[in-house]
Amino acid sequence: MAHIELNNDAPGILGLMHYRPETAGPLNALAEVLLRGDSTLTRGERELIAAYVSNRNECRFCERSHAAFAAAQLDEGMTLVDQVRADLDSAPVSAKMRALLHIAGAVQRSGRDVTDKHIAAARDAGATDVEIHDTVLIAAAFCMYNRYVDGLAATTPDDPAMYEAVAENLIKTGYQRLT
Amino acid sequence: MAHIELNNDAPGILGLMHYRPETAGPLNALAEVLLRGDSTLTRGERELIAAYVSNRNECRFCERSHAAFAAAQLDEGMTLVDQVRADLDSAPVSAKMRALLHIAGAVQRSGRDVTDKHIAAARDAGATDVEIHDTVLIAAAFCMYNRYVDGLAATTPDDPAMYEAVAENLIKTGYQRLT
Repeated sequence: MAHIELNNDAPGILGLMHYRPETAGPLNALAEVLLRGDSTLTRGERELIAAYVSNRNECRFCERSHAAFAAAQLDEGMTLVDQVRADLDSAPVSAKMRALLHIAGAVQRSGRDVTDKHIAAARDAGATDVEIHDTVLIAAAFCMYNRYVDGLAATTPDDPAMYEAVAENLIKTGYQRLT
Repeated sequence: MAHIELNNDAPGILGLMHYRPETAGPLNALAEVLLRGDSTLTRGERELIAAYVSNRNECRFCERSHAAFAAAQLDEGMTLVDQVRADLDSAPVSAKMRALLHIAGAVQRSGRDVTDKHIAAARDAGATDVEIHDTVLIAAAFCMYNRYVDGLAATTPDDPAMYEAVAENLIKTGYQRLT
């Protein structure tokens, strides 16, 4: 049960967004531009960064959601998401994605943990400045979404089918139509 | 020097927002509704939560900015901001603000650190569900803004007059006009 009376039974962040539409607007607009807007990173790659950070923050609702969203938009599906979660260094991702995920992992701990070495490794692997910018902001944004969901003890459904159904809707209509 | 080439010399998050206006829009819209929109918490109280979380994340640009914004909108000015930063439990804030700041401090560590006891203490001190919701989301949002600024090594001016000048503009025009 959530820490506050939400007066709706939508799961996870969706229940919080129904409760407070004034803040839901910019929260969804931010997710839409970061995870689905024009980018040289694919939507699947960006959802993988979101799932990776949510896993490290131990936010089960967000992790399950964005793992499903990544799996639905990556050729390798949930297998790759699981490999990245299990061990980033041995997962079969590109050198660029590995370097960007290492930046995301640093941001998850603290912005101050991102070093010149992290940035140089991403550049050496072909990452552009905009890709580095967006990776830092996606990771930072999930440090917000994760704390929002868990800080209010939003519900976390167990049924994987729920997350797959939301993934299907998301791909069709985008973040701003989810609530 | 920032980790990426921003092609502008605006300080801190303002430089990042000039670099990537697509994400600046929702980031500023979120700050505007959370810190300046309709609320039973004053603008000064909400900026105090932002300064408190930024201090705990050791993000100097955000801490100095929101300390200046809080001081400019609180009757007690910077004295109260400094007292809260030095020791929340002895600072002369209301019982409600103290309980809400304790919730913000928990969120800064992890959303999962917010307990039923934190929530009950805030309710006992008169906090409403919306005030608890907004406190959690302000604290979570500053875990994003702080990581965004430090994760890209945005510049942090030393001159207090810079932060006071931005505070004056902010109070006049709001977050969405700052960039």
